[in-house]
Amino acid sequence: MQPKIRSRNKSTPSFIEAARRDQLVEAAIATIAEVGYAKASFVRIAERAAISPGLISYHFSTKGELLEQVIVHITTTMDRAMSARAEGASGYVAALRAMIEAFVHYCAGHRPEMLALLQLSSNAEDPEVAKELARTQETGLSELEEMFQKGQEARAFRAFSPRTMAVTLMGALEAVPRELALRPETDVDAYACELATAFELAVQPLPHAPRAKHKKRR
Amino acid sequence: MQPKIRSRNKSTPSFIEAARRDQLVEAAIATIAEVGYAKASFVRIAERAAISPGLISYHFSTKGELLEQVIVHITTTMDRAMSARAEGASGYVAALRAMIEAFVHYCAGHRPEMLALLQLSSNAEDPEVAKELARTQETGLSELEEMFQKGQEARAFRAFSPRTMAVTLMGALEAVPRELALRPETDVDAYACELATAFELAVQPLPHAPRAKHKKRR
Repeated sequence: MQPKIRSRNKSTPSFIEAARRDQLVEAAIATIAEVGYAKASFVRIAERAAISPGLISYHFSTKGELLEQVIVHITTTMDRAMSARAEGASGYVAALRAMIEAFVHYCAGHRPEMLALLQLSSNAEDPEVAKELARTQETGLSELEEMFQKGQEARAFRAFSPRTMAVTLMGALEAVPRELALRPETDVDAYACELATAFELAVQPLPHAPRAKHKKRR
Repeated sequence: MQPKIRSRNKSTPSFIEAARRDQLVEAAIATIAEVGYAKASFVRIAERAAISPGLISYHFSTKGELLEQVIVHITTTMDRAMSARAEGASGYVAALRAMIEAFVHYCAGHRPEMLALLQLSSNAEDPEVAKELARTQETGLSELEEMFQKGQEARAFRAFSPRTMAVTLMGALEAVPRELALRPETDVDAYACELATAFELAVQPLPHAPRAKHKKRR
């Protein structure tokens, strides 16, 4: 429940420093989820983390830097949750299914994180935040694209544009936290299963298409 | 090319008034697409529409009211483009396909409108704008949900949650303008066709499922 923050730009902080940054990032997530982006000041975040506001700027020189770390923190824990489920899967279709279901369950189990991310996405005037969101988005797209490509090479998926399918799946995934925020009563298991089935049907080889003989491209 | 603005909240304006409001809404779209949300001031918009800035407030009392009308204008022309394509379709599957393809082509043919909408969505701190975006979103979702429901009743679609599929399709559609903005070189025809195919495969009756006997529910 207390995952380490991977600092992407800085040299590795000491254990104490890392723990304090961790604490601030978690306080920032909870504060943004509760009062919204605009009202999530350093003072409020410090209050929640029970530290002096002046101390925040020792760890994060700007609000943008703290928010960037919030995005890194959320996407890292999310990636980990999704990979853990997908890695045990037998084959590409099962891995896709596991990944989609893990994402829906992550969203449902991390509502403050997802609310904070939604808040950041709809208030992206901060250049550092906008850049980090765009970077995260592009990394996610590339990973999905690669998975679709490899699945096609293994003949587990039909022929389609891996990029278009990646953009489509990403859009469908991004709609999940919004829907769970709008309708908290949503049946999460059913949602996860239905979303996975929709994409399984969208990517699987067509039954009437002649299956090409095992011809490895790589 | 100069669609009428449907005013949803006000009594019908005179012809001259409607034309002037139209002109301001179009100037607002072009300005937001060009300089971004934050810099799209009344002064800049008036300049582009070649009218005195003071006159804008005769037509729109706040920037929020003008932006609300921008959203209404875009969604109305978009709905019209999509309905026109879908209405000629024979059956639910063809209508879904036509609607998805029309949406992608609308996005490609109305880049300033889509850029303006993206700008408004990621800067939704204005309560009037946020409310109008949420309303538009919910209306779109309800329409998609109803279409899926009716298609299921007609046995054109397999059994799935119409709400989940509507949220999924809406997410996939919302990803289109972002992708076209990010990669303007995208092959629009191919994108439209691939997206439509993905959803066609996701909703169509499963080949091995026994087809229930013609039993009309309504």
